[in-house]
Amino acid sequence: MNTIGLYGLGVMGASLAGNMLNKGEKVAVYNHTPDLTDKFKSDFPHENADLHYDLKRFVSSLETPRKIFLLVTAGSVTDSVIESLSPLLDKGDIIMDGGNSNFVDSNRRYHALKEQRIHFLGVGVSGGQEGALKGPALMPGGDEAAYKEVAPVLEKISAQVNGKACCAYVGREGSGHYVKMIHNGIEYADMQLITETYQIMRNILGYTVEEIADIFEEWNQGELESYLLEITSDILRRKDDDTGRPLVDVILDKSGQKGTGKWTSQNALDLGVPLSIITESVFARFLSSLKNERVEAAVKLNGPEPKLETNREEWLEILRQALFVGKINAYTQGFQQYKKASDEYQWELNLREIALIFRGGCIIRASILNQISAAYDEDKDLNNLLLASYFNDKVNDYESSLRRIVVKAVENGLYVPCLTASLTYYDGYRSAESGANMIQAQRDYFGAHTYQRNDKDGVFHTEW
Amino acid sequence: MNTIGLYGLGVMGASLAGNMLNKGEKVAVYNHTPDLTDKFKSDFPHENADLHYDLKRFVSSLETPRKIFLLVTAGSVTDSVIESLSPLLDKGDIIMDGGNSNFVDSNRRYHALKEQRIHFLGVGVSGGQEGALKGPALMPGGDEAAYKEVAPVLEKISAQVNGKACCAYVGREGSGHYVKMIHNGIEYADMQLITETYQIMRNILGYTVEEIADIFEEWNQGELESYLLEITSDILRRKDDDTGRPLVDVILDKSGQKGTGKWTSQNALDLGVPLSIITESVFARFLSSLKNERVEAAVKLNGPEPKLETNREEWLEILRQALFVGKINAYTQGFQQYKKASDEYQWELNLREIALIFRGGCIIRASILNQISAAYDEDKDLNNLLLASYFNDKVNDYESSLRRIVVKAVENGLYVPCLTASLTYYDGYRSAESGANMIQAQRDYFGAHTYQRNDKDGVFHTEW
Repeated sequence: MNTIGLYGLGVMGASLAGNMLNKGEKVAVYNHTPDLTDKFKSDFPHENADLHYDLKRFVSSLETPRKIFLLVTAGSVTDSVIESLSPLLDKGDIIMDGGNSNFVDSNRRYHALKEQRIHFLGVGVSGGQEGALKGPALMPGGDEAAYKEVAPVLEKISAQVNGKACCAYVGREGSGHYVKMIHNGIEYADMQLITETYQIMRNILGYTVEEIADIFEEWNQGELESYLLEITSDILRRKDDDTGRPLVDVILDKSGQKGTGKWTSQNALDLGVPLSIITESVFARFLSSLKNERVEAAVKLNGPEPKLETNREEWLEILRQALFVGKINAYTQGFQQYKKASDEYQWELNLREIALIFRGGCIIRASILNQISAAYDEDKDLNNLLLASYFNDKVNDYESSLRRIVVKAVENGLYVPCLTASLTYYDGYRSAESGANMIQAQRDYFGAHTYQRNDKDGVFHTEW
Repeated sequence: MNTIGLYGLGVMGASLAGNMLNKGEKVAVYNHTPDLTDKFKSDFPHENADLHYDLKRFVSSLETPRKIFLLVTAGSVTDSVIESLSPLLDKGDIIMDGGNSNFVDSNRRYHALKEQRIHFLGVGVSGGQEGALKGPALMPGGDEAAYKEVAPVLEKISAQVNGKACCAYVGREGSGHYVKMIHNGIEYADMQLITETYQIMRNILGYTVEEIADIFEEWNQGELESYLLEITSDILRRKDDDTGRPLVDVILDKSGQKGTGKWTSQNALDLGVPLSIITESVFARFLSSLKNERVEAAVKLNGPEPKLETNREEWLEILRQALFVGKINAYTQGFQQYKKASDEYQWELNLREIALIFRGGCIIRASILNQISAAYDEDKDLNNLLLASYFNDKVNDYESSLRRIVVKAVENGLYVPCLTASLTYYDGYRSAESGANMIQAQRDYFGAHTYQRNDKDGVFHTEW
């Protein structure tokens, strides 16, 4: 009998199946069409691979409780695959969805399958093709007892950091896909922050592409250490084969998106979380897509042109500190959203474990995650990472650098939405008085929405 | 026979019915419970008011095609009211929903009723209780032929500006409620921009509350003229009866929200519109609600304290210009969203008419709307208001003022999210090069998402 089944042999599914085989599992594989099963046979030849072209036989080949990992297209395909599978399953069998599903769909599937006594785990998977094969970050959510059944396999195939698997039970219902969604939102913000830093180095500090690659590599030795910074150095060193120019200079500045950043922001709006940094990174992608309009507007709309700063070595350290504060604020907003979601949806998300999972395999892996997990280790109900001692000290040391960089960019007319939103959030969060008393007065004036007072309890309305 | 029926006699419904009676209509009124019908009888005694306690008789009292205006709670109540009404109606009758419905629901209702040959108009209503009675702004959407049937009544009861009704057909399906939704989003941004300006005057320029009331009143004589600025002066002059202090100073700085600002941002994210200013105004409300956390953070997180500026008269004009650019950008983003929605949903929204509607009755009425309608009069397919001649000249004159104000606020540690987002958007929109080439390189590196080049057509992928 096979220990696990893998349904869906696209790039991610095949790589995960290959990973399981390499870790000693007996893996049954199946695909809706035979071509990918054939391709798997040649790409991943292995004695423990059990290839199936018939769904019933695929299911029958699994030891019970059956464990089936789906890697199929998110959306209606996932629903129809589950519909075809569930009549073949028995009470206690486990379906894991490793696709990029929306957590709302995962919630629904969790409850629908629960009625059939089938366990559903939504599993966030990050790391791309290479991660899937060599060790992804896995974020499984659903029934905890069901997770324990599959934990031996999942924790074996995931990335490992200091002997700990980058895989742990994160919470109830569809929370696994939720955790992945916000992971991606943080990823958007981190990419945009690095990009803004790059643009300041290039347009204001006047460094060459090659010099910036070296600077990022050096920064990556310290507290900023992260996968995204590492690959940015690689990218900057890459020359275009055709022109000999840095490849980054011939790439068109219109960026796409696949929806998870947008979902993160939309959910923040539902939950009442001030997620400004990730949201600005999504808007930056939207704005980038308006290339023709921007080119026209650049001629018509006034503003300062970037001027080269002469004292650039001093500014470089200021910039490094600004990037780090920017990043701390972005992760802070994302983790605030986890906390709010955990309360609102009653998921009991384990924020410490989530931070530990992210340390390896996934796109946002970064050394900062050690401090984040430590902060939740110290206080699992922490309201805001900025108030944990490590981050509190760090932002107090560096906030003036972020402030100087934002002023510098504004004075030079440079678009740095995430660094700016990061500072704005910081200043908003540390404002004992927010100005919202004026908003409340206006709302009460035109809409009789009432207000509270700061000197006594109650709800008040004024006939203005 | 009665010319129109009003279903739902809460504050808004009763006021609208009173408005219709005052304009000479014969109005049948009905409420689900008799108490509000009785209240209407005493609040709005009128010979042309036909009070009903029975739904069938209410419907039968109307001339055909019947015109029924609903003012009931948005959501499931609206559905059940429509469900109870529709069996009593004939082909060609018209239901108008004047509630705060989500446009997605209005789309659904439009099509469901169309199958029954009943016309559905979603009608955005703005102006609060006073507007409803004396002349609201009305934004009707749905079937244009059906609108023509009700136009004589709606255009009579709406606000009038220079002899033109603040009511006109806006577009297909549920677009009337959509137009209202973004109206509210712009309202959020405008309120926050005024609040930030107030805070700068108070905390950095050192003006008293009374002085600021005078300054806003003076500004309201010029290009900044708007209802919201006008009421802000009123608010600032109001003293608290208990303490004798300015009332604004005893109101708690936690602001609420009822969802339309949030919906606007969520829809912008769906449509790919960079709606940063309105979204920051929504996040500002969220942040304001975290009062206890902010008070704690104010002690723990470093930052500059606001310092009084001595040369305050000069700064006052800079601030006025900054507020105006901030406002232009906020309206620009809102109207960009209308344009995108019109294309995406095939509504053929008439942007010029929308601007004209907003000139009277509604909360965001402002003299700027004359220039907005003129801009669309000149070019109905205008991509962006910033490129229309009036606004282009204005922002070119004033952009450096907004820049100086943002720098001033940042250096003083003051939270001004909408002024800041406004400048960020402006600088982003006028960036011929956006930096998104780096984002695309990163996405291609870790996810093989491919990229385009700026020197030739095609889709490319690099084995990094």
